Amino acid sequence: MSFKRYIPVESISELTINRLSVYLRCLQQLEQEGTTTVSSQELADRFHLNSAQIRKDLAYFGEFGIRGVGYNVTQLREHLVNILGLHEERRVLVVGAGNLGTALSHFSGFNTGGFRIVAILDSDPHKVGKRVPGGLVVESVSDLPRIVKDRKVHIGVITVPASSAQKVYDDLVNGGVQAVLNFAPAQLKGHPEAKLKNVDLKINLELLSFFLTHAARMAAIG
Amino acid sequence: MSFKRYIPVESISELTINRLSVYLRCLQQLEQEGTTTVSSQELADRFHLNSAQIRKDLAYFGEFGIRGVGYNVTQLREHLVNILGLHEERRVLVVGAGNLGTALSHFSGFNTGGFRIVAILDSDPHKVGKRVPGGLVVESVSDLPRIVKDRKVHIGVITVPASSAQKVYDDLVNGGVQAVLNFAPAQLKGHPEAKLKNVDLKINLELLSFFLTHAARMAAIG
Repeated sequence: MSFKRYIPVESISELTINRLSVYLRCLQQLEQEGTTTVSSQELADRFHLNSAQIRKDLAYFGEFGIRGVGYNVTQLREHLVNILGLHEERRVLVVGAGNLGTALSHFSGFNTGGFRIVAILDSDPHKVGKRVPGGLVVESVSDLPRIVKDRKVHIGVITVPASSAQKVYDDLVNGGVQAVLNFAPAQLKGHPEAKLKNVDLKINLELLSFFLTHAARMAAIG
Repeated sequence: MSFKRYIPVESISELTINRLSVYLRCLQQLEQEGTTTVSSQELADRFHLNSAQIRKDLAYFGEFGIRGVGYNVTQLREHLVNILGLHEERRVLVVGAGNLGTALSHFSGFNTGGFRIVAILDSDPHKVGKRVPGGLVVESVSDLPRIVKDRKVHIGVITVPASSAQKVYDDLVNGGVQAVLNFAPAQLKGHPEAKLKNVDLKINLELLSFFLTHAARMAAIG
């Protein structure tokens, strides 16, 4: 699927794409509740979003709603699934079988929907061969190139210590992985042929700290 | 510290606050490298940021730079530390001693800087009393109100299964916790007296899936 007639994908920001995920969650919820049509204003009111932003974000990818009627909930959900590439299975490899990697490999907020963790690797010989919750057996990081190729891995997830993260990232990209999610608190030198997304968990604590400092009694937001 | 003369804190978005954290990381790196002054343009060029956005974000909180000279790196870092409330220790309680909670309790990207995990709780009697990596001993979730009070907990982190998340959230807020970070994939009913931040880890996989679908050969971004 290509949306090039609307706008080049390079000019769509990560924030826009993240909002598409949020809209998808909202539409899934509406569908479960039996709602069949929804306007951008109703969607915004219900989930505390911005209706002009919703219309602008969706306009990148085509014309979905009918003026005065709104969006067909199921159709728009399907469009978002396609736009986000969630209609095909994405095979995910986790490198680092510590607590974080083990958690992600069987976490219902991660290893579901279109995503499937197909392997978890570690360099520690004491961990290799052990079964983790969820059923995967830890494999050796020395088998990374073979596993990436054999299991057609789309996405690599780095949960090793910061000191090993660059080497794992390089190995993933050299092995042919085109998208990498990095949880290690390390500044990685990127490769142009692979998309790198760094996850900074502490930024969430800093956000809360800001609100504790300035607005302890502010309203909760979702 | 109050910045009310510039703008009410309620009107500052989460995205702005998250960018302050990013600026802080950049300034810390510049400081380590021995850089003493930096302009918004140099900061933007070096770390792939937007210079106009930097100036706008900082303007919420005062006038920091000197026209034609730029920012004093150390002073601006200290300002950001104060704005984010990181000059005082933030005591954090983790509820759920599964792999994710255990990982967070000793993860160098989480349990550092101004943040200190002071307790990890679980409802499973087999886990209570066990020591987790990092040194904490798992305590019973039934002691939550006492622990929050005795250890003056600022932030609660929810890493329990989705089905238990609402009860844990309610217990945290009723116990007096004013900021909660929720990792459970559950829609929580918010309390007006506490700031709630939901962390959606899968949104990062969906972002990568989007790029795999539309732009497999796009340049890596940091």
